[in-house]
Amino acid sequence: MDELRFRAAMLCLVLDSRAVVHAEEVLYCNYLRAEMAPIHFGSLVYDYQAMDVIGPFDLIGSGGRFILDAVSFFTDIDRKLIDRAPEFVFHHIGETLDPVRLLTSSLVVNPTDTLDDCPELDYLLVGGPNIKDFKLSPRYAEFIRRHVAAGKIVFTTCTGAAVLASTGVLDGKRATINNLEYEFARKQYPKVKWTKETKWVVDGNIWTGSGAVAGMDMFAHWFKESFGLDLLTEASKGLDYEPRDINGLFKVFPQRYDENGVQLSTLVLP
Amino acid sequence: MDELRFRAAMLCLVLDSRAVVHAEEVLYCNYLRAEMAPIHFGSLVYDYQAMDVIGPFDLIGSGGRFILDAVSFFTDIDRKLIDRAPEFVFHHIGETLDPVRLLTSSLVVNPTDTLDDCPELDYLLVGGPNIKDFKLSPRYAEFIRRHVAAGKIVFTTCTGAAVLASTGVLDGKRATINNLEYEFARKQYPKVKWTKETKWVVDGNIWTGSGAVAGMDMFAHWFKESFGLDLLTEASKGLDYEPRDINGLFKVFPQRYDENGVQLSTLVLP
Repeated sequence: MDELRFRAAMLCLVLDSRAVVHAEEVLYCNYLRAEMAPIHFGSLVYDYQAMDVIGPFDLIGSGGRFILDAVSFFTDIDRKLIDRAPEFVFHHIGETLDPVRLLTSSLVVNPTDTLDDCPELDYLLVGGPNIKDFKLSPRYAEFIRRHVAAGKIVFTTCTGAAVLASTGVLDGKRATINNLEYEFARKQYPKVKWTKETKWVVDGNIWTGSGAVAGMDMFAHWFKESFGLDLLTEASKGLDYEPRDINGLFKVFPQRYDENGVQLSTLVLP
Repeated sequence: MDELRFRAAMLCLVLDSRAVVHAEEVLYCNYLRAEMAPIHFGSLVYDYQAMDVIGPFDLIGSGGRFILDAVSFFTDIDRKLIDRAPEFVFHHIGETLDPVRLLTSSLVVNPTDTLDDCPELDYLLVGGPNIKDFKLSPRYAEFIRRHVAAGKIVFTTCTGAAVLASTGVLDGKRATINNLEYEFARKQYPKVKWTKETKWVVDGNIWTGSGAVAGMDMFAHWFKESFGLDLLTEASKGLDYEPRDINGLFKVFPQRYDENGVQLSTLVLP
């Protein structure tokens, strides 16, 4: 275990210092990381659409060690796969610990951390509020700017991209947003290179997704690239979910047909 | 409006008294209901998987009047469609108002109602906990039994079917469950006619779904049958979500191809 920690730390140092990093190196690095320490994912608690955060978190959580361990009581899962699964810790970060009513589902959530006592995050997810009159608080905006400036990955889903744009970090970058709010975002934030050609867009360390479920597709892609297709398949089984590729097509998992050529549902839950 | 209320009340009385009800009558009844009064959807708050409840609630909520009204600021939506959209009120019903930590996503939710002060529900959704050691409280069990005995629809997603089975109301009924927990449920509740042939099963007023996203597919079907394909399409646009049919195939929305026969993503967000 000590040796693993050392190898991971060395590899991460090397990767951080290089301009070009190959996908398999990132994959290997994340394999090592999974053995090493929990991955801290954060979300800022304001009145976003509940699915924007729950969808992606529950998806990757379903491929995390905690859930796979629990599920292995009910069904066979290769022990090696569970050992390789990442351990996630999710943080719902409030300005205070006061409960917040989300935009949808009448869900009232209690923050798990405040801006002041939240541990160092590895990844940040910015959910989508009703951007008609939404104003991000200056402290949240500063938190986002610091996270992005540190070179760490930020994800947005739905109108979260407009929230990100309001902090200035999207200026000059390519981004997408829930297509329903596309024209509004284009006018409101003209310095961003908005596109709606694909379900998600990656520009440097900024990943912007379209609507909430497209956000899940984006997380599925990130999870697959980071931990492998076999672990994404396990994650997807938990939710009975089939991810789309970046073009919105169901080509991530192989299609299945019976002997007469009639289509069957995919391999997620045979 | 008074006339509408009267027609709806009469129609509901007639339908309630009949053994066989046709789909178009239910649809018409729900059109009238949408003009009439909010539809109260409830969920019992215990440590279920967050997506089991948020997925279905956010999906139908995205086709509800509140969200469509909000979205119409950003994009054209036919006013007649919005006027026909149902108005939903979601209740998260606790035994007390104390916060509950859900099974996944580290989400801590505050109930909106208690068992004692919750208004009369139209529909109940039972989410899925880790059923290895889960015990439903006697007061929740009684609440479920009363709801089902009143002939009102109960939905389950994921392992919620095992929670329902533990109350006895599934005895002798056909049901499905998240396929990962299928064998466990079959042994634990042998009086239920379990199947995993379809993504969801309807037996009388009991709708059981498979995993969380299959539960969204089930809700999409219910929403379409109740309010029409045009409103389901609007609901799906909000989440950028494509529902599967009962066999797990993406045939609810028409497939799209370009002039060279290359598949495009579906019509949800053209």
